[in-house]
Amino acid sequence: MAQSGSVLSSYVSGSWQAPAGEGVPLRDAVTGEVVTRISSNGVDMGGALAYGRTVGGPALRELTFHQRASLLKALASHLREHREELYALSARTGATLGDSKFDIDGGISVLFAYSSKGRRELPNDTVYVDGAVEPLSKGGTFLAQHIATPLRGVAVQINAFNFPVWGPLEKFAPAFLAGVPSLIKPASQTAYLTARLVELIVESGLLPEGSVQLVAGSAGDLLDHVTPQDLVSFTGSADTAQRLRAHPAIIRNSVRFNAEADSLNLSILGPDAEPGTPEFDLFVKQLTTEMTVKAGQKCTAIRRAFVPVGLLDAVAEAASARLAKVTVGNPASGGVRMGALASLEQREEVRRSLKALLDASSVVFGDAEKVDVVDADAERGAFISPVLLRAGDSDRAEPHEVEAFGPVSTLLPYSSTEQVVELAARGQGSLAGSVVTADTEFARDVVLGVAPWHGRLLVLDSTNAKESTGHGSPMPALVHGGPGRAGGGEEMGGIRGVLHHMQRTAVQGSPSVLTAVTNRWVAGTERSVTEVHPFRKSLAELKIGDAVVAGPRTVTQADVDHFAEFTGDTFYAHTDPEAAAKNELFGGIVAHGYLVVSFAAGLFVSPEPGPVLANYGLENLRFLTPVKPGDALTVTLTCKQITPRENADYGEVRWDADVTNGADESVAKYDVLTLVSKELE
Amino acid sequence: MAQSGSVLSSYVSGSWQAPAGEGVPLRDAVTGEVVTRISSNGVDMGGALAYGRTVGGPALRELTFHQRASLLKALASHLREHREELYALSARTGATLGDSKFDIDGGISVLFAYSSKGRRELPNDTVYVDGAVEPLSKGGTFLAQHIATPLRGVAVQINAFNFPVWGPLEKFAPAFLAGVPSLIKPASQTAYLTARLVELIVESGLLPEGSVQLVAGSAGDLLDHVTPQDLVSFTGSADTAQRLRAHPAIIRNSVRFNAEADSLNLSILGPDAEPGTPEFDLFVKQLTTEMTVKAGQKCTAIRRAFVPVGLLDAVAEAASARLAKVTVGNPASGGVRMGALASLEQREEVRRSLKALLDASSVVFGDAEKVDVVDADAERGAFISPVLLRAGDSDRAEPHEVEAFGPVSTLLPYSSTEQVVELAARGQGSLAGSVVTADTEFARDVVLGVAPWHGRLLVLDSTNAKESTGHGSPMPALVHGGPGRAGGGEEMGGIRGVLHHMQRTAVQGSPSVLTAVTNRWVAGTERSVTEVHPFRKSLAELKIGDAVVAGPRTVTQADVDHFAEFTGDTFYAHTDPEAAAKNELFGGIVAHGYLVVSFAAGLFVSPEPGPVLANYGLENLRFLTPVKPGDALTVTLTCKQITPRENADYGEVRWDADVTNGADESVAKYDVLTLVSKELE
Repeated sequence: MAQSGSVLSSYVSGSWQAPAGEGVPLRDAVTGEVVTRISSNGVDMGGALAYGRTVGGPALRELTFHQRASLLKALASHLREHREELYALSARTGATLGDSKFDIDGGISVLFAYSSKGRRELPNDTVYVDGAVEPLSKGGTFLAQHIATPLRGVAVQINAFNFPVWGPLEKFAPAFLAGVPSLIKPASQTAYLTARLVELIVESGLLPEGSVQLVAGSAGDLLDHVTPQDLVSFTGSADTAQRLRAHPAIIRNSVRFNAEADSLNLSILGPDAEPGTPEFDLFVKQLTTEMTVKAGQKCTAIRRAFVPVGLLDAVAEAASARLAKVTVGNPASGGVRMGALASLEQREEVRRSLKALLDASSVVFGDAEKVDVVDADAERGAFISPVLLRAGDSDRAEPHEVEAFGPVSTLLPYSSTEQVVELAARGQGSLAGSVVTADTEFARDVVLGVAPWHGRLLVLDSTNAKESTGHGSPMPALVHGGPGRAGGGEEMGGIRGVLHHMQRTAVQGSPSVLTAVTNRWVAGTERSVTEVHPFRKSLAELKIGDAVVAGPRTVTQADVDHFAEFTGDTFYAHTDPEAAAKNELFGGIVAHGYLVVSFAAGLFVSPEPGPVLANYGLENLRFLTPVKPGDALTVTLTCKQITPRENADYGEVRWDADVTNGADESVAKYDVLTLVSKELE
Repeated sequence: MAQSGSVLSSYVSGSWQAPAGEGVPLRDAVTGEVVTRISSNGVDMGGALAYGRTVGGPALRELTFHQRASLLKALASHLREHREELYALSARTGATLGDSKFDIDGGISVLFAYSSKGRRELPNDTVYVDGAVEPLSKGGTFLAQHIATPLRGVAVQINAFNFPVWGPLEKFAPAFLAGVPSLIKPASQTAYLTARLVELIVESGLLPEGSVQLVAGSAGDLLDHVTPQDLVSFTGSADTAQRLRAHPAIIRNSVRFNAEADSLNLSILGPDAEPGTPEFDLFVKQLTTEMTVKAGQKCTAIRRAFVPVGLLDAVAEAASARLAKVTVGNPASGGVRMGALASLEQREEVRRSLKALLDASSVVFGDAEKVDVVDADAERGAFISPVLLRAGDSDRAEPHEVEAFGPVSTLLPYSSTEQVVELAARGQGSLAGSVVTADTEFARDVVLGVAPWHGRLLVLDSTNAKESTGHGSPMPALVHGGPGRAGGGEEMGGIRGVLHHMQRTAVQGSPSVLTAVTNRWVAGTERSVTEVHPFRKSLAELKIGDAVVAGPRTVTQADVDHFAEFTGDTFYAHTDPEAAAKNELFGGIVAHGYLVVSFAAGLFVSPEPGPVLANYGLENLRFLTPVKPGDALTVTLTCKQITPRENADYGEVRWDADVTNGADESVAKYDVLTLVSKELE
């Protein structure tokens, strides 16, 4: 096994490559023992990028979104089978079993989520159609459609030490789904866990060759080789983010650079949430949990806890009581609630930041120099006590600027909604924030006040506490990233994260060209009306543009009267000629819209059993011209989009329906959604 | 008038401010006379930004999207009334009347387009709701909604010299609609035209104070003052784009930086388009037009014209013949087709670039050192001849790298689709490209092959030529910007350009919190069912969450039989028990979906004349559970979104419809769209 030796290998250009030289040691966060050594000496970074572009990219682009989504699901299942092994390695990073699950199960769940989103929200095709057709001319011969196509480069993913599994996977999943190969560069401290993850991925044999590479060790000259079609995603400190963002090759090539940086995330207790309310308890519990999960080494952790000035003592007391019960020590030991920081260097860094914070705050709980630990050596392991501070003056700079990246938070008093919104902005941009309140108006005011500074906001109350995923958890369906200090980036967010890896292009042309480019029938393209009704065709036979024209059927006054009586829809425009005449939109009796679409279905249907299994929905229905008694309706139904399912014997077919009157005006337009068999029985 | 003096003033912090010192002269491109002088000496850049943030931003954020859209329309009308005056100034930049219309009318049309898009595609509200509600829990108490809110900073817009009106307006319109104030920094050479534009805007008194500022002259220390909530948009050279992108304040604050840079845009002639075909003529005509409009000073102009090797001579000949008819000279003179470059410096720059290009090309037409001009002095005015080149070898670097920013293009031979796609990528990213062909398959292959390198692609053929807006015209509804060398940015694109000025935030919480934050009813929020039917309420009375529950009504076998006969929809699942039983989705006779929604309408309707004027559409209809004869249907209709129109006595109301069966399962869900009066009559 590539990673069983004493130095981590990199997986580049299709093979595991041991570095030149012996590398630097990586130490167990709990015991201080050397776990392995790391170096990227001798790794051909330019070659790895070229390999991704020429081998991984083309292989991925052969697959449809749904095929890539299916592979993500298979990979997720494979990794789930090996998670015990990953938990064991994770413990050596200082993580408790709960921390490890947060990282490892969390990462696997991102794969499942992207697999599911990909199949539900993307076409089973290689081109993404972005937004609506844009009409550009009166005659309809010239229009446009935005599409998105995968970038032809490599997604260079530079990860942080705190989430060695979730971090790479949350970047990899949307890149893979987009059709862009990944090159993973983990932070050294915990790289052995990421390396094992990549080894599991490679061993699975599930993914096309070249779709994942790993550089263990420093990035070396990696970024010198990025080109305009590559993209770089970084998670880590704000300082490093700035340095990488200004890298000459990134600047020169306008390389997409996405950063997620640590930020001074806030949590706000509402004035309504006095002691004794569920929200008071929720606030305190969430605060102490966020301090201790991953020993506070979360870029989303709460650093600034804003509390109404009158509730500050009560919160300090309640939080201290909870923190006093947190057992620190060897994560492998029973009862331990908080493990070690990732390294002794990390502990020094936290202590330094704490000193700066103490210029403006006093200690409510804990001592950064002293902690009782269970089943471990408090000095050889990177242990530290949770430390809760309290700012005397919320206006001081330090609590809004200095982040101690460990189990450290500061309580800050506030006295009005306006003030807390202003103080929130002092953080200069955050990944996540939370408001704990049962007062919906307060929640609205705070959310809209602080939203420009946040990528994600959680409003926690007693009604959703049981189901809430919590302040600190980025979700695959939601954007992760914040403005300013938080890096200005955006990851995940469901399909948004996929599109970050694709180029959006406006394609202008005639309807038939847009149909050919997008594989969707665009109105204005010639239809194919043949003797065989398109409902008699299986997915194997059906083609975009296959159509049926049916009618005319004249709508009579008797039809309208009858429909009103039968359905009970006796709206005056259908039943009262005088009142209907006064309605300027109608100027007289009109047929029910529901009557029009029902008659249309009666016209275009092909009744006998066949490949069309069901009409499961309708979209974008617009009634464009009133239908008067005497109007003769014709319907044209055209096959617009075909989406075979990967794991079923049927798929979805979307039909364009256009109902016209005798004057050839459209009276109703809509999409009909059906399920259709892949083969005739 | 502020701009009538001998030095241009800046409009900052609420007043016109003359610079300290006398500035540098700006010369008429045709005569060489001094038009005015320019300097930003003494302008308080930090103060201007602070003014925008504290005065302009809050005033804009008071308005809804529709209110801002209405102001854009009024402004567009105002500017249209003054366009003759702008044309006159524009002629001094070297522009013909056609060029001026392209710039000035084009800019005004962007305002109209954004006004229209804003009213049609944005809510009449201050919060943008982005995408669907994301379910995050099984019980439905915890979910999320992405929203977008305006950035709290200033949109700093640094424009190029070539479009002194369109350039500022295409950046201003989406910023204004988003609720973000603009600070316009035109390029000096043509700044007197932009200054007059801003003067017209200020004089109109239409916009909230602080929503537009102007810095005439150099940017000075402007960028030193940008903060995380500001954004910077730049149009100009790739070199300057790189310098600004790496500015310390931009890097430090993760400031959104959008660049549109000149690029080596291509046009590709299809192999089918032999001489004698309409597409051959279209290609040649478009090429020569793009060379001469604005004297080729367009960042979207065609620099690389790819031609099948066998057609190269024919294209060279036809293009030369057209170019020979182009009269160069004083734009004020009749018959002049091409005016001057913007300055003598610009001409020197073009000549320098041409020299580099000539290392790999020969001249087909024109002489950069010699041109016959009408009614002008060829040396004092910045005149130059159109120059068409021909590359001997398409593989040489120069044609793909060197841009002569004037009436200069290069013909390049190619021999296969694969080759031309590869050569296209050599430009390293472009704003726009075009393919001229009647072969849809060739169009598809080329479009999908070169899309990752392009922001916009045009497929031109004889069917759309009359209505086509052409290769070189960015459209407000379409993205403008390209990857890599083109700057990696994206402007306009309809509402996308508005969202570039807003922060996207995922808001997690209970349904009622999301309803309060978004002003849209989110399923799970308590409804208000009162004695008054919500269809009896005008917009003034109606509230989000107002609801009616109606039913039950039992669907009988007779109803299904009758509906099948009445509508003609005799699909077997409704009429043939045996065949229906074999369909696994149904397992027996089911009611028509159209019957279900028709009955639902019969249940929820309030028949008498009242504020509800019409049901104009339906969206997102899904049939979730088959309805069997005997099922009793209940419908709950809830007011979901209210959109009063700014200039009408009614507005749109969107209703959430949920039809359930006796087991309380949803059988159909959809949105009902209605028009409702603002007041009761």
